Formats: sequence, C-alpha cells, structure tokens
Amino acid sequence: MQSTMQDVPLLISRILTHGSTIHGQSTITTWTGEGEPRRQTFAETGARAAQLAHALRDELGVTEGAPVGTLMWNNSEHTEAYFAVPSMGAVLHTLNLRMPADQLAWIVNHAADRVLLVNGTLLPLLAPLLPRLESVEHIVVAGLGDTSLLDGCAPRVHTYEELLADRPTAYDWPQLDERTAAALCYSSGTTGDPKGAVYSHRSVYLHSMQINMAQAMGLTDKDITLPVVPMFHVNAWGLPHAALMTGCSLLMPDRFLQPAPLAEMIEKERPTHAAAVPTIWQGLLTELDARPRDVSSLGWVTIGGSACPPSLMSAFKERHGVVVRQAWGMTETSPLGSIAHPPRRLLVGDEQHYCLTQGRFMAGVEARLAAPDGGFAPWDGQSEGELEVRGPWIAGAYYGGVDGEPQRPEDRFSPDGWLRTGDVGTITPDGYLSLTDRAKDVIKSGGEWISSVALENALMAHDAIAEAAVVAVPDEKWGERPLAAVVFREGEPPVPYDDLCAFLGTQVARWQLPERWTTVGAVPKTSVGKFDKKVLRKQYADGELDVVRMH
Amino acid sequence: MQSTMQDVPLLISRILTHGSTIHGQSTITTWTGEGEPRRQTFAETGARAAQLAHALRDELGVTEGAPVGTLMWNNSEHTEAYFAVPSMGAVLHTLNLRMPADQLAWIVNHAADRVLLVNGTLLPLLAPLLPRLESVEHIVVAGLGDTSLLDGCAPRVHTYEELLADRPTAYDWPQLDERTAAALCYSSGTTGDPKGAVYSHRSVYLHSMQINMAQAMGLTDKDITLPVVPMFHVNAWGLPHAALMTGCSLLMPDRFLQPAPLAEMIEKERPTHAAAVPTIWQGLLTELDARPRDVSSLGWVTIGGSACPPSLMSAFKERHGVVVRQAWGMTETSPLGSIAHPPRRLLVGDEQHYCLTQGRFMAGVEARLAAPDGGFAPWDGQSEGELEVRGPWIAGAYYGGVDGEPQRPEDRFSPDGWLRTGDVGTITPDGYLSLTDRAKDVIKSGGEWISSVALENALMAHDAIAEAAVVAVPDEKWGERPLAAVVFREGEPPVPYDDLCAFLGTQVARWQLPERWTTVGAVPKTSVGKFDKKVLRKQYADGELDVVRMH
Repeated sequence: MQSTMQDVPLLISRILTHGSTIHGQSTITTWTGEGEPRRQTFAETGARAAQLAHALRDELGVTEGAPVGTLMWNNSEHTEAYFAVPSMGAVLHTLNLRMPADQLAWIVNHAADRVLLVNGTLLPLLAPLLPRLESVEHIVVAGLGDTSLLDGCAPRVHTYEELLADRPTAYDWPQLDERTAAALCYSSGTTGDPKGAVYSHRSVYLHSMQINMAQAMGLTDKDITLPVVPMFHVNAWGLPHAALMTGCSLLMPDRFLQPAPLAEMIEKERPTHAAAVPTIWQGLLTELDARPRDVSSLGWVTIGGSACPPSLMSAFKERHGVVVRQAWGMTETSPLGSIAHPPRRLLVGDEQHYCLTQGRFMAGVEARLAAPDGGFAPWDGQSEGELEVRGPWIAGAYYGGVDGEPQRPEDRFSPDGWLRTGDVGTITPDGYLSLTDRAKDVIKSGGEWISSVALENALMAHDAIAEAAVVAVPDEKWGERPLAAVVFREGEPPVPYDDLCAFLGTQVARWQLPERWTTVGAVPKTSVGKFDKKVLRKQYADGELDVVRMH
Repeated sequence: MQSTMQDVPLLISRILTHGSTIHGQSTITTWTGEGEPRRQTFAETGARAAQLAHALRDELGVTEGAPVGTLMWNNSEHTEAYFAVPSMGAVLHTLNLRMPADQLAWIVNHAADRVLLVNGTLLPLLAPLLPRLESVEHIVVAGLGDTSLLDGCAPRVHTYEELLADRPTAYDWPQLDERTAAALCYSSGTTGDPKGAVYSHRSVYLHSMQINMAQAMGLTDKDITLPVVPMFHVNAWGLPHAALMTGCSLLMPDRFLQPAPLAEMIEKERPTHAAAVPTIWQGLLTELDARPRDVSSLGWVTIGGSACPPSLMSAFKERHGVVVRQAWGMTETSPLGSIAHPPRRLLVGDEQHYCLTQGRFMAGVEARLAAPDGGFAPWDGQSEGELEVRGPWIAGAYYGGVDGEPQRPEDRFSPDGWLRTGDVGTITPDGYLSLTDRAKDVIKSGGEWISSVALENALMAHDAIAEAAVVAVPDEKWGERPLAAVVFREGEPPVPYDDLCAFLGTQVARWQLPERWTTVGAVPKTSVGKFDKKVLRKQYADGELDVVRMH
C-alpha cells in the first residue's frame, strides 16, 4: 500500500514564510547599549531576508550550495542572514568570533567562504585576519564600524543596508530537497583542527519543532526569548528558527553580553525565557546581588554548555523566582538532546534531584552508554559509559572540505553510525542522563574513575570559592590523581586547603580527595566560556602553578 | 556542500520505543463502566505491542504493506494495535463502527483487510456483516463478548490474549522508509463512496510533534489526556501517538461515551486535557448541570469536528472553569491544521473573538483561499473562499484500492496538488481561519452567500433551543433560501417562529432571515455526530417536514 500524503519538504524558507506572515507582528528587538533598542517585526524581517537573498544572488553571485560566512553578534541582521542564506539554497556558515585568530582563519579557508557578512563593531577582529583569508571576495558590513580598517583589502567591501536597498521584498524560494545543506558550524575542538557539522533543512526544521514541544522549551507567540547564547554557536541553540516557527518574539543582546546590560535589558524588555551557559548566569547573579533589578518576567531559563552548579540553580530560584532547567547538547546535536524537566512521578529524591541531571532525552534522540568493556552499560542510574546518540538532527560525520567526502573519525563515530559524544555519564531507567565528566577529563586513579566535575561542584558550593577546576595530573602510585585549582571570591580571605579538604570530605569519598591544590586568579576558559582544562594541565606540566601537596 | 546529519527515518516504532522506555511509567487507563478501570504502563504497552506484532507475523501471516483492520473502541488493546501494526511495516486500518453497515462492508472489501481485530462488545455489529466480507481470513476478538455470534463463520476466530500469550516481549522493528504507509482511514464522505487517506510514518511522526508543540496541544508527561474522539476517527486526532512521544498518560473511555460515565471518569481519573466534538461537550454540559461533578482537573479541552457554539464555550468557562479551544482539521489533514489560541497582540476584539475562530495555522500547514473568481482571496478577514491546504501531513490523493493508483479527483485536489477542503471561510492577516460554512452547505441566495452555520449559531444562542440546523432549499425567486429546523429544549414551551425571527434579526442581516421554519425532534446526525444536512434536505424535498412559511 502506498501513502497518499503530500510530499512536502521540510524547509527553512517555510519557517520564514510562516513566521513573517502568520506571526508577522512578532518582533526582533536588538539591544543598542544606549538609547532605544532597534525593533523590527517578523513581517519586516521576512521582507529584508528576501532583499538580502536577492542581493547575495544578483550582486554577489552566491549560488546554491555556496557557503556564506557570518561574523556577527545576535541581532536582527544576523537573523535575516539565518533565514535568507539557507532559504535561497546557500549555506550559512557562522563564525565563532571568540576563537583564536589562527583557528578562525583556518575555518574560513577550510569552508572556502566567498562572502562574509560582518558586524561593523567586529572589524577590528576581522581586519588582521584578512591577509590570511584565501577565498573571501566580498565583505558586507552590517551596522556602524570603522570601515577604514578595510582600506586596501583585496575583497570588495559592501554596506549591508546599501546592498539591500530597493531590492524586491519577496523571493521565490526554491523547493529544495530537505536534505540540502543549510548551515555549517565548526566546534571549538579542544584537540586537533576544528570540526564542521553541516546541518540540513530537515535537521533544522525537526529540531525547531522539538524545541517548541512543551516537553522541551515550549515557546509560543506569547513568549519573548532572549538568546544570550551566541548565534555563532550552534544556531543559538535553535532559538531563532524555533521563534519564527511559533511567533515567539526575540530579544537580541547584540554585543552587550556583560552582566549589567543583560540585567538592564531583562528588566526593560521583560523576556519570558532566556538561554545561556552557566558562566553568564553566574555573572548575572553576582550583578543582581550588587545592583538589584526586576528579572521576574523570566518564567524559566535554559542553561547548558556545561554542568550548572547546584548553588547557582537554587540562588536563581530563591532570590529571583526564576526556574533553571539544564539541557544537554553539543554542536554535533543541533544542539538539544535532553532537558531536565522533573518527571510526573518522582522515583528518587525530590524535583531538585532531577533538575540537577542533564535531563531526559527527547523522542527523536536515541541514546546508549558505551561501557569500558566494549558492551553497553545498563540504564540503572549507576553504570557509567560514554554517551552515544543517534537521530535525525545528530551529526553522522564532519565536513570534509571543498572537494572532500564527509569525514567519520573512529573516535567520534561508531561503526554503526552513532555519534560518540565524548561525555561520560549514567542514565536512569526513566531516561535521565547524568554526565559525570568528559571522557578526556575523567581522572583514572588506580583502576577507578574520579569525576572532575563532581569535585568542582562540591568545591563551588563553598561560600568562599568563586570558581574551582579539577584536572587529572600524573601520579606515580595511582596513574592519575586530581589537582584542584580554586578561585577565591573577591574580598574573601583564602580558606586553608586543609579546611577545603574537610569540606569536600563531607560530600565525596575519602579516596577521591585531591592531594594537590593551587589558587589561581581565574580558571582559564575556552572561546565559549567553558573551563579550558587543557591549559590548566599544561600550566601544571610546565611548573607554572604554585601547587601545595597535602597529606 | 553535503549535509553531515545522520539519515534517521521518522518511524512510529521509534515513538513506541521512546514511550515504552523513557516514559515506561506513564499509563493507559481504560474505563470499564463498573469497578476499577484497567491500568497498564507504557512499558507494558510496549511489551504487548511486540507480542501482538509477533502474533500477527508468525501466526496470522501479516506481511509488510498488508492492511490490518480494527473495529475497536478507545482502549489499551487498540493502542497496542496502533503501534504494533505500523511498526512491523503493516498498515493499521481503523474501521468507523458508526458507519452504516453497507459502507463498512464496502470499506473492508475495498481495503482488502485479511485480518480484523475487534472488541468483543462489537461482535453484534460485526456478525451480520461477515457474509459480505470478501477478504477477511482472521478475526481476533479482544475483551469479552458473545463469540457464539461468530459460530460457523468463514474466517478463523482467535482470542486476543491467547494470541499474545508467551510471545517475545521485544521485536526487532524494521528500519522502514519513513514514507511507508502506516495507517488507513476512510472519511465518512457525505457524497459518493468513502475515500481513504493513507498516512505515512513520516506524516504521523511530524503530526505528533506538532500536537506536542506548546502552540498546539502541548502535552507533556505531566498530563493525562482523555481522547473522547474515537480512535477509529482520524487517529483520535493524533493523541495516542502524541502521548507516547512525550509520556502523556492516556485515559481511554472504551465504549462509555455517554455524558454520565464521561463525567464520572473525569471526576475520578482527573485528566488534564480532553478532546471531542461539540455534541459530546454539549451532552456533558447538560449532564453536569443536572448532576454536578468536579471536572476541574481539565485545564483545557480541544473541540473540533464542527464549529463550537459560543454559548457552549462560555458555559464551560463560566460554570466549570474549563477553557475550550477550537481546532480545525479533517481526515485528510491527519487532522490538526489550525487551533484557536488567542494571539499575544489582540488586533480586534477580545480573546473570546479569537477563540471563536477555527484558529491559526501551524507552521507545517500552508493555506490559501480559492475565490469564486478562480483567483485567491486575500487574507483580510473579509474575503471568502474555499480553503486549500498543503503540507507534509496533508493528503495529496486518496487510496485507490488494492491494485489501483492513488486517486486525485479534481474536486478534492487542485492541479498543483493542494487539498481542496470543501470548507468556505476567511483568513485574517495574522492567519486566523474563520469557517463560514461547508462549500456544499452555503446558501447561494440571489448572488450572495448565506452561511448556514452563522444562522445555526445565532439560533442556538436562544434559551429555548437545544439544536438548530439550517439548510438550503430551492427558491424560485432567489435560487436558494434557508430553511431553519429547530429542536426545542425538553420541557420548554415552543417559541413562535415570529419571535425566533425577531431574535435572529438582532444578529444577522435582514435579507438572510429564513422564511421557512420547521420543528423537529432531533437534528439528523452523521456517524461521527455531525449534523447530516443531506438527510434534512431530502426530508424537505420528500415533503416529510411540517414547514411553516413566514412573511
């Protein structure tokens, strides 16, 4: 028997058309730092996306399948590019402006971007890279900036607004195959060259539906979401696409990601939802403690990128009435894989117990735990393994370069095509994931595993400690042992390591307690704000840390 | 550039596996009329669905692509069939037990069902049909019933529980193409032979995601949904699939669809959501007025199938605190096409104004209004046209029979493949659909259209009137004019037609007022509870109605 359903492809242009007509009144508000924010409706966004597509095709010669790079903050122009570029059949390549210059240049060359859209405020970052960019022929500058920095550069320079002006406000979007490449994002790999994930129209569309499911983020046209998570980082967790799909208004922070302007824009624009990594929330909390603001419009926020310290979660709940929900994902998973809403029936502990997990997998995401013995660990909430996932918005390969086939390195993809996440954890019988560590950060001590994250969380619950990182260091007797690097709160007197050990001892097993301690000014961070343990390990190896050995 | 996403098909088996593992504790509760309801977990449902699939394949020889008929109420066994049959690659064919016997037999023969699953309580309905069923070889009886009714029949008779007993509780579901046929449902066409829509795994999966979007029904594992709408009618509006996808528990009414048991099961089992056609809600309201029950667990209910009288909507809100949301759809649209949540910004009127529309289209559903002049009517909230829709869960053809190609009758599908819905209405600039009538029920009076539904709603707002139907009847001067058939409330004295005319005159234009009036004991209904205007028109033509001519 043959299905009689229409064969309509899942296309990003369809999300755009839906959002800019049925939800034409919903808005994108872009923060400007001073004065009034810039506001535009979804209807205007649809018209401007059409103009951008005309300009890219007719003026800059962008063809189907061609990558278009963006070096931009979260703002309305970046949203226009988010929809115009894939809808016309080209590939949106978001560039992570926090990456080291070397990596950024490598990525632009690897993707062979011919056209770059860049915010004027980011020209100081782009200009020094230009001599090393091999493929770029056009630079389109959006917003004000010092364009003299581009004087004499090889690519042609355009102004975004001039490029769009007077072009048609409708575009006959092509009926693409839904498996057509839509967007390209390189992960800021901590080892080796960056790896690119190429999202398809299908994967973006399905992921957007998932985000909008009540079980996930459940956005509707009654919401305003604030994606603090950058649009250059895994599609801002899918929020711009999800927003146009349901008419959820967008509050865009542009480059104002510091705690003070974030607090101000929340108080003034009253978003109902926001998404960011823990370090952003930690900064906002500190800001709110110092200078109280009304952030009560935020019903709840999504936190991800790394584990949320329990203390941060309860502080937001208790002091500001804001519910924090952890989510798990990565560049290779579009990113949403799981989210930690507590279940209807609490099998163990209380709601908070479930909130501290990485959450439950969504229906489109299959999961398994690869055990050290080569089999799969049971979902018993105890057995650890490396998380492997499968699904229609999960990468099965990496971008192989202009002429190359997709790459499937063995350490990232299983022989049967599942993604090896590099995350180690447990899964409960009802599907709650608890990550205990990164596979490479686990401390292998005498045949046992010690979770660096568990020690960090325990330490960060101490009142005097602002940040703490724990890394594996070589040990003659045990193979590896933990080194604890702590940052004391400003104005707080340092606490003796003996006392910290005693504090830790109330929370973790005695044999897991670190013998090696050091105090640092700040924990080194990666370009996306995660602890960069590679740097800490190197500092230790190079003897750059002042380490005290206990016991 | 090539996408690097995994190519994972959207399969119903994936929904089942997800629901029966991650949400294994969620439950299906089947009402039994007296005593305790039957309860089983999603985990048990998954195990039993696997057993059913083994039995169908190994014992009854069901192969991939073969239709398996179900003549069943809403209960746990029907849910098992909902997942087992498509997951194993066969096609679930739900039989509408309210159809006339002739149609039912025609449909079973047209689909060529070899296997029928039937509830024991429905054997009195099935038995007389048996001699006319040409393809049926196996009858599987679920639940108690008078199996002696099947004595001596040609097909082999099996007992559902015996068939499942001792079979493996896991099944290696095939990795089908997502466009594989999954389910077949014939619409109770008011003209011509019934027409079959064949849903695919893809369409069911996408529709389930849509149902679970917060913008639509937004079910989560914290919900219990009560599908009063039958599982033999457009997949119970997609609720069983949507429930397994998010762990929403199911309260199944079985054959107890009368107001009293519905009120009792709502009070005792405390569902958070329910879905039914207006006549069911009208009956429940009358029951609750007579014998009050606590139905406060219902946060909101979905109503569809025909327009909800405003009086019904406000009665539920005011007397029971239950929010009613209208939705629009049909067998050919899986069914959800639009739903009437009020928007964030009210352009006109109040929230109630929007609630009385058929709602806003979801992102996957494209819509246009075919105007009488051959063009398309603008979305201005005024211009009428026949609604045409396009999307991945919308039919593009009808089932053509065992060997036949899919059929695309011109009056149901446009040359470019859109579904002609047969519904006439308007769409506002922000995408709210208001149906004014069925294309065939519109009264074409002197070059103007009169909506029969508008007149009915206006009449049903009168305190003395229980039901009212308006149909077009031939008129020498105007071509067609409206005939009003009214049912007075029990115990209420009949109101003179003059007074009803005056009452109507305060709500509709004078030239739309019916000249012809009749009083009937009940409005004739179709098998799914809609007004059957075909019957009324015929009664009028045959002179069977006692018609009073006014003016």
